[in-house]
Amino acid sequence: MMTADKLRQYRQSIDNIDAALVYLLAERFKVTQAVGQYKAENALPAADPTREDAQIARLRTLAVEADLDPDFTEKFLRFIIDEVIRHHTQIKSDLG
Amino acid sequence: MMTADKLRQYRQSIDNIDAALVYLLAERFKVTQAVGQYKAENALPAADPTREDAQIARLRTLAVEADLDPDFTEKFLRFIIDEVIRHHTQIKSDLG
Repeated sequence: MMTADKLRQYRQSIDNIDAALVYLLAERFKVTQAVGQYKAENALPAADPTREDAQIARLRTLAVEADLDPDFTEKFLRFIIDEVIRHHTQIKSDLG
Repeated sequence: MMTADKLRQYRQSIDNIDAALVYLLAERFKVTQAVGQYKAENALPAADPTREDAQIARLRTLAVEADLDPDFTEKFLRFIIDEVIRHHTQIKSDLG
């Protein structure tokens, strides 16, 4: 049986992983902001369904390898992409 | 102006970051599964609002340091925690 101390250790691991996730997400949005700038300057649409389909297929495969639920992984990517599209639409409207 | 080649490079960075995110999430759910087992065995509730409030406050601070939107970060953590609670409820019902 796990002790309360073990629970505290697990939560510390979760907190460490969450910090890594936040920093990775920050880096990811830095890259997608640059992509958004490019798209806005070249009058490209904010969303790119072909690219998104390829990303989803690839991440579902990676999820299986990592023993992560592929459906959850797809929902996760969709959650991130929705935020990216929101940013890209904002950049476009800022450029007028 | 960014070239199409530059766009391809940015997308490769996004793909690399996404792979890292998938593997980190897989690791995070491994830890939360262990926590869920502990909670189920000790008849603890799947959700823990006090712990969640502390996690949200901490991640919002980290987000500001990383130049990531704190509101998005909170939504992101809530998205992950909802999945964790779903798992914990499942473990509890499996234990009968």
